[in-house]
Amino acid sequence: MEGLLTPQTQELIRMALMEDLGSGDITTENTVSPEARARGVIRAKAPLVLAGLEVARAVFSALDPQVAFRGFARDGEVLEAGTGIAEVEGSAQSLLKGERLALNFLQQLSGIATLTAECVRRIQGTKAQILDTRKTTPGWRHLEKYAVRMGGGTNHRYSLGHGILIKDNHIALAGGLAEAVERARRGCPPLMKIEVEVQTLAQVEEALRVGAEMIMLDNMACKEMEQAVRYVAGRALVEASGGISLESLEAVARTGVDFISLGRLTHSAPAVDISLKYERI
Amino acid sequence: MEGLLTPQTQELIRMALMEDLGSGDITTENTVSPEARARGVIRAKAPLVLAGLEVARAVFSALDPQVAFRGFARDGEVLEAGTGIAEVEGSAQSLLKGERLALNFLQQLSGIATLTAECVRRIQGTKAQILDTRKTTPGWRHLEKYAVRMGGGTNHRYSLGHGILIKDNHIALAGGLAEAVERARRGCPPLMKIEVEVQTLAQVEEALRVGAEMIMLDNMACKEMEQAVRYVAGRALVEASGGISLESLEAVARTGVDFISLGRLTHSAPAVDISLKYERI
Amino acid sequence: MEGLLTPQTQELIRMALMEDLGSGDITTENTVSPEARARGVIRAKAPLVLAGLEVARAVFSALDPQVAFRGFARDGEVLEAGTGIAEVEGSAQSLLKGERLALNFLQQLSGIATLTAECVRRIQGTKAQILDTRKTTPGWRHLEKYAVRMGGGTNHRYSLGHGILIKDNHIALAGGLAEAVERARRGCPPLMKIEVEVQTLAQVEEALRVGAEMIMLDNMACKEMEQAVRYVAGRALVEASGGISLESLEAVARTGVDFISLGRLTHSAPAVDISLKYERI
Amino acid sequence: MEGLLTPQTQELIRMALMEDLGSGDITTENTVSPEARARGVIRAKAPLVLAGLEVARAVFSALDPQVAFRGFARDGEVLEAGTGIAEVEGSAQSLLKGERLALNFLQQLSGIATLTAECVRRIQGTKAQILDTRKTTPGWRHLEKYAVRMGGGTNHRYSLGHGILIKDNHIALAGGLAEAVERARRGCPPLMKIEVEVQTLAQVEEALRVGAEMIMLDNMACKEMEQAVRYVAGRALVEASGGISLESLEAVARTGVDFISLGRLTHSAPAVDISLKYERI
Amino acid sequence: MEGLLTPQTQELIRMALMEDLGSGDITTENTVSPEARARGVIRAKAPLVLAGLEVARAVFSALDPQVAFRGFARDGEVLEAGTGIAEVEGSAQSLLKGERLALNFLQQLSGIATLTAECVRRIQGTKAQILDTRKTTPGWRHLEKYAVRMGGGTNHRYSLGHGILIKDNHIALAGGLAEAVERARRGCPPLMKIEVEVQTLAQVEEALRVGAEMIMLDNMACKEMEQAVRYVAGRALVEASGGISLESLEAVARTGVDFISLGRLTHSAPAVDISLKYERI
Amino acid sequence: MEGLLTPQTQELIRMALMEDLGSGDITTENTVSPEARARGVIRAKAPLVLAGLEVARAVFSALDPQVAFRGFARDGEVLEAGTGIAEVEGSAQSLLKGERLALNFLQQLSGIATLTAECVRRIQGTKAQILDTRKTTPGWRHLEKYAVRMGGGTNHRYSLGHGILIKDNHIALAGGLAEAVERARRGCPPLMKIEVEVQTLAQVEEALRVGAEMIMLDNMACKEMEQAVRYVAGRALVEASGGISLESLEAVARTGVDFISLGRLTHSAPAVDISLKYERI
Repeated sequence: MEGLLTPQTQELIRMALMEDLGSGDITTENTVSPEARARGVIRAKAPLVLAGLEVARAVFSALDPQVAFRGFARDGEVLEAGTGIAEVEGSAQSLLKGERLALNFLQQLSGIATLTAECVRRIQGTKAQILDTRKTTPGWRHLEKYAVRMGGGTNHRYSLGHGILIKDNHIALAGGLAEAVERARRGCPPLMKIEVEVQTLAQVEEALRVGAEMIMLDNMACKEMEQAVRYVAGRALVEASGGISLESLEAVARTGVDFISLGRLTHSAPAVDISLKYERI
Repeated sequence: MEGLLTPQTQELIRMALMEDLGSGDITTENTVSPEARARGVIRAKAPLVLAGLEVARAVFSALDPQVAFRGFARDGEVLEAGTGIAEVEGSAQSLLKGERLALNFLQQLSGIATLTAECVRRIQGTKAQILDTRKTTPGWRHLEKYAVRMGGGTNHRYSLGHGILIKDNHIALAGGLAEAVERARRGCPPLMKIEVEVQTLAQVEEALRVGAEMIMLDNMACKEMEQAVRYVAGRALVEASGGISLESLEAVARTGVDFISLGRLTHSAPAVDISLKYERI
Repeated sequence: MEGLLTPQTQELIRMALMEDLGSGDITTENTVSPEARARGVIRAKAPLVLAGLEVARAVFSALDPQVAFRGFARDGEVLEAGTGIAEVEGSAQSLLKGERLALNFLQQLSGIATLTAECVRRIQGTKAQILDTRKTTPGWRHLEKYAVRMGGGTNHRYSLGHGILIKDNHIALAGGLAEAVERARRGCPPLMKIEVEVQTLAQVEEALRVGAEMIMLDNMACKEMEQAVRYVAGRALVEASGGISLESLEAVARTGVDFISLGRLTHSAPAVDISLKYERI
Repeated sequence: MEGLLTPQTQELIRMALMEDLGSGDITTENTVSPEARARGVIRAKAPLVLAGLEVARAVFSALDPQVAFRGFARDGEVLEAGTGIAEVEGSAQSLLKGERLALNFLQQLSGIATLTAECVRRIQGTKAQILDTRKTTPGWRHLEKYAVRMGGGTNHRYSLGHGILIKDNHIALAGGLAEAVERARRGCPPLMKIEVEVQTLAQVEEALRVGAEMIMLDNMACKEMEQAVRYVAGRALVEASGGISLESLEAVARTGVDFISLGRLTHSAPAVDISLKYERI
Repeated sequence: MEGLLTPQTQELIRMALMEDLGSGDITTENTVSPEARARGVIRAKAPLVLAGLEVARAVFSALDPQVAFRGFARDGEVLEAGTGIAEVEGSAQSLLKGERLALNFLQQLSGIATLTAECVRRIQGTKAQILDTRKTTPGWRHLEKYAVRMGGGTNHRYSLGHGILIKDNHIALAGGLAEAVERARRGCPPLMKIEVEVQTLAQVEEALRVGAEMIMLDNMACKEMEQAVRYVAGRALVEASGGISLESLEAVARTGVDFISLGRLTHSAPAVDISLKYERI
Repeated sequence: MEGLLTPQTQELIRMALMEDLGSGDITTENTVSPEARARGVIRAKAPLVLAGLEVARAVFSALDPQVAFRGFARDGEVLEAGTGIAEVEGSAQSLLKGERLALNFLQQLSGIATLTAECVRRIQGTKAQILDTRKTTPGWRHLEKYAVRMGGGTNHRYSLGHGILIKDNHIALAGGLAEAVERARRGCPPLMKIEVEVQTLAQVEEALRVGAEMIMLDNMACKEMEQAVRYVAGRALVEASGGISLESLEAVARTGVDFISLGRLTHSAPAVDISLKYERI
């Protein structure tokens, strides 16, 4: 429960161990002596922002509490290709069994952190912050939101229970924007703000009028977003969302929005390359 | 347990519902009437190969067994942008609560199927088959291997218990390639073949000599792979692996290998764009 | 997942069935014929506000899907002593096995709703709302917060992840109130407000100055609370907390605070009396 | 599995950690340094009988095995207001995260022990013992029965599988008292006694005649109970149940019954006040 | 929860499905069309007492709720070789996937019922009853105790919480037989009897003197057991245990003991032969 | 996850602890002091092949991490009657609570290893190997396959996902043997071989012709098996299965088959006798 290792993460590690080792490791058990010991280094094969070191440690520890795991870097650090991330040492069988799973976690989480850091870099000098979304890998919400933070991003809502965000579908089904905001305010826990998704400047006005505290500009052109920001004039937070590429990020940030949210941080970040080679000791 | 809906998948759906709805959906519960009913269409926003329809159905069904879910397409189908995938109808609250999770599954699995199909297309006319790897998202092994099949790929080992694959680390820790193969054969369940990972032609010879039934050529140049294939001459299956890009796929296939394995199918496939819009009924 | 029946609730029901029926019901199985059928009415034995009807239904349904359960009332309704709440009909064995567990849920949840309604009644005519706390029965957070709403109360934070509330212990360990608020603002997800717990008027001033959006007056006398409310003057929400009895509720509400939070709603509400008598059919 | 820490208790702790910390502790993580260390004392704020110390310890230990937890008292001890119960020391973040959950367990379990002890005190000098019932908080059976023992009470049946108790509903559905007892005897495991619930003296006679080994007098007046005890004359154990208040306890005990069972011990015991304040070290 | 299908049983079925189908059924999925339908009969291949029919039904139903399962016999029935037990009909793939698991349950549980019935038959005409023990297959306690009942046996304690049985190890560690019984009586829930394991007639006397309500004669010769029974003379129940073979059963029963307990019923009953053959429809 | 202690095994241990200790151990808790310490030796009471020592250790360790467990033998060792297997030392209560469960695991797993070793012994000098089947105790697949290995046997398929075995039911439902093999080959993962079950020599020919890599001779007479082996002549592996008794084992092995599979190893092995006696220290 310290940092990453919540019950959810532990459950995910357990599921993943079952997936890969549920019927044993017939290669390792048949080729390597149970007495053999080994050592290996987890190493970045490309530049990356690290995320998930404690999950990798927990994988080996769940497999075999005797494996020694020494981290050389910390989550959030920017690493050059070739940098050592951690050293593992222990039973050769245990190391072989845990290798792929530990790397699978590290590569995917560091992939998210690395992509987030690249997005943050592209808007440096503006006041905008990079937000994630709820477009996460089912089962990985906690881990992926953490990886976004490690890359310098800011977390949007953790779940449907962590903030009021009235989207187009809610407006359609609630009988209009104003009606939806009005109802939401009545049931809203006192520590939660209300955000509204809008497509037009007219909706920006309406949202502000009924007291939205944050406004999501959905798929707007930069020019329109600039108008919206100018109109809002600090009376609410403004978030740009939808259809934003790496290339257009800077332009969007320069419209003056407070936040830019990107589903791709979590649903489409490519894994980064990390290796683990063992030697007998 | 029919098709995709194994206990693992159901457990993953349960975890994902907890993540997103564990403390309720304060937007929907406060803006939309419990009596309101709605209908919506899940729609491809870009060309894709569909995978995961039954998972999407199961998400809505876990939330509310009264939601009607009518599929218009089947997993494995190639869909044009704009094609309707399924229609959902029922309680507006239930539809709003399940929307994002259903799409998260569909977009990621269809992303994998779509990338796999693209790889398969690029090697059409050769005898090579596209294989996946164990570089899957922890917790998603079953779903991702299924999506690869839907894209026309072939599954490699499901887990460490589903086949003997002696990799460089095993060779290093077992005291040599021949020694490792020999030991593996003794403990190998009778329905399992033995594969060996090699880096050099000398190792190809050694692996064949000790009776490997499949040989993985790791990170070899195409020219070397051709030599290996010629040398093996059908006495074992041959797999190309490591450092293969979409662009180099065809050249690798033309070397005559039986299989090409690609980690990116599962660890780096971008999600495809799928939408779901509701109207009140 | 509709309303109350989240995965947590279902897990709690499963645990409770195991507790009470894990080794069978040796009385029922040995005295009543498996073919016997019965009918019974769940009935309020004292005036109460109902909460948990769907949990009671789910208990019987988990035991035996053939049991018919017809509700006569709805959660949140005020019922006189003697009123019928629901009728159950089915296998006599199933009804006998589920009786106590269904009542245990209903009596405790309705106890919370009933106490909450009494508190709400006592402050009618003021602008204050009754809030719950995180002092809930471990494992019951979701159910108890629901029961508070059924009694007319408002939910405070669902969990430590659902809002920033800087308490005395945080201030002590963070190096002061202003420092804590400042840091919290930097990491705070955009849809979350910041609340600060204070003991003195000086702290009220400090909290307001550094931008707290909600202020919890901890264990203050009514007179002091009035001064605080006057000083805040609408610039933040104000919550009274600590040491408030049923008797002092009205006086506290008249100080002008926006919210009054009461741990007793969930940790000390006495169960209400509800009976279930069967007859053979 | 030592004492209280059965798999059920551990599962309940896990559920409770998920409830409160499933999406992190955004206050603590954003205000207090991960390096900060703290110390605090858990302290009785009112006189109480302690129960649940090992659960509190387990909460901190599940969160962070590095937290040191030193108990100053033992379950079952009577403590004055102001007495220190335990000291915790470790990472300030871990201490802040576990505080409320540890107290929630301690306050509710000690509340039950304290109320039980008060009941036991009121019947001192009689031969009667205080029994609990199956009216426990679903999910808490094991913990609450333990707390009753800590308060000096005796546990009645743990579950429907732990003893034969033929109640009014069984008699109604089995075709009469004698018939029910006769059937129960045939299927009864050899180490279990048979108890029958009765409302009248005629039923006491009938129960004795068919060999009941324990008789529960349901909602009888004291005078009638005295007659029942005299009639039974040691041929069976006698339990008084139903409608017994703290005030009437002594009178009931003086009727000569062997046991007095009270649902309120577990369903309506108010939590006792226990605090935990931290200081930085 | 009806009869056999408790949460434990369902959990065991889930574990068993994972074991056998966790990575799919690659034979069935690749050889039989998903559209094919089949029908088959579960048939006794040897005389047996049936137990576990509802578990077999639940296995198919967990795999595929569309499978129709029609029972031809009931648990506890004595069946001739060749008798049809049940008919299954549905998707050919589902039937093939569930066949082995359904049979594994049926064969092992019916094996226990069949052996129990044989033991019961051998002591017919005596007053002795056949008891099981806690020597059950871990995870199968509930199912195996049920199978014993189906064979006509009586259940001894369900678990360590379901009765006081003071064995040699307790006596050794408690400081003597009388001391142990005395202490047990003080903590004993009122509906539980106390049994003592003895090796000698002197211990029988001691156990009776201190009020044991049941006495287990451990590994005694028949002659000695007769003396014990005569000495006890109905003042306690008497159980014979240890070293009793099928052949010696009748002689043991004729000593006049009330119960004979046999570990072999559950730890060594051979599976009975049951087949399931399909035809396409 | 080292060796036997996979998540499945740990889950099975947890279920078994719940079964036996879910409501406490009322004998031990009431007769033996929590401070008392004891020591005992686990001892073979009959000749046996040991299996499951680490499970026994894990049972005590799950109950109480302070119990010291020193093994004197290793799994797979042949032990004489009277040999000490392990010594346990610690809290007398913990030792008493874990005794039966630890023995239940040890006795059943060693029973399987012992029976397997007996089968292996009977075919010594032939080339045949003893195979297990999927006729395992549901929930125990992993443990029982391990015990077979400890007895010197070879594991057949772990599950339906670990090898293609086309049985009579598949042939019937797929439209013939050749058709089934042909289809299986197309979907077969590259590291898996295809086995076909046959009843006649004509089917042996057909299976070979379509390329089966292993052939299971089902319930054939020895003479016929000899003919089959001669016909196959090393072009496929040959397995004898069905209706093979301990007595006929050697004759079957002398037919020249490569493997003999026996369901009885796992579904009908009698438990072996192992004791555990404590003394106070």
